[in-house]
Amino acid sequence: MDDAQLIEHTLSSEPVFDGKLLHVRRDEVRLPDGNAAVREWVAHPGAVVIVALLDNGRLLFERQYRYALHRIFLELPAGKIDPNEHPLDTARRELREETGYQARVWHHLGVMHPCIGYSDEKIEIFWAEGLVYVGHERDQGEFLEVIEMRIADALLAVRDGEITDAKTITALMWADKITSGCWSAPE
Amino acid sequence: MDDAQLIEHTLSSEPVFDGKLLHVRRDEVRLPDGNAAVREWVAHPGAVVIVALLDNGRLLFERQYRYALHRIFLELPAGKIDPNEHPLDTARRELREETGYQARVWHHLGVMHPCIGYSDEKIEIFWAEGLVYVGHERDQGEFLEVIEMRIADALLAVRDGEITDAKTITALMWADKITSGCWSAPE
Repeated sequence: MDDAQLIEHTLSSEPVFDGKLLHVRRDEVRLPDGNAAVREWVAHPGAVVIVALLDNGRLLFERQYRYALHRIFLELPAGKIDPNEHPLDTARRELREETGYQARVWHHLGVMHPCIGYSDEKIEIFWAEGLVYVGHERDQGEFLEVIEMRIADALLAVRDGEITDAKTITALMWADKITSGCWSAPE
Repeated sequence: MDDAQLIEHTLSSEPVFDGKLLHVRRDEVRLPDGNAAVREWVAHPGAVVIVALLDNGRLLFERQYRYALHRIFLELPAGKIDPNEHPLDTARRELREETGYQARVWHHLGVMHPCIGYSDEKIEIFWAEGLVYVGHERDQGEFLEVIEMRIADALLAVRDGEITDAKTITALMWADKITSGCWSAPE
């Protein structure tokens, strides 16, 4: 099928909510059949997620309360990209701030889009190894617990429903394929 | 760490945007240290994603324009749960509407949360097989192309950055583990 039969064109765009974190826009679009429709979407600065492999063979995980779901989640270290920040710098900063570790070796694995239905968020996936603990520097009001977990155990936690965060599962799939030798680490 | 050192408590909650699709709330919360903070989040009805295995060994995929990212995505069939609809009925309905297939065998594989930072969305992951083509019934204004793809090729498309949708990658991980015999299909 020709892409032109799928693409929507912007007719107008307006901000409808400008919050502390969330910025929502409402656009009018022209559909492929010429009709008009409304699209509401979240404008997001982008984020990183980090597969951080300790010398003992375990990955760094975090237990963190996620207010929207009123639950503690088991997830990989992650964070939003600051204005004009290079994603690798975000990854270094978030790993240091949240877990207290610095890494000698970094690889960029790939990207994912967590929420294509209503957000433009893109998450860059990083691999970190050669980890040294230098002490965490959590933001005021940031509460989390750092956990170490083998990849095999994390995969079982996905199967058993203990890990349900899609960014974590997506990054774990990369980690699984790379450590099992199916995929080579890029760069 | 005690969960009480992580949990946030709701002090107040108000709707700040009620759109056609998006419903955004702003809550004031009490942090574990007693301080107050603001949480903005999207209230979502929930969704399903479907790993639909054809008798020829390929999975059903869709090419669909995603306005928030101004791009066509390669993704598994999926859709939002209607009010009072059972998720399995959503999965049957969406598969039929979007791809034209009905399935004799359904399994519920698990759940994922695509966007824990700012949405309460939960996606139920279904497996469908014994597929029979009966003709699609797309909604007015729904434009997509159905594609067939082997799981192994879909995994390579993840590695090569052609599939970046996190719900699709997460469901593919389930499909990969089940078809390779690592995990048994539940139920």
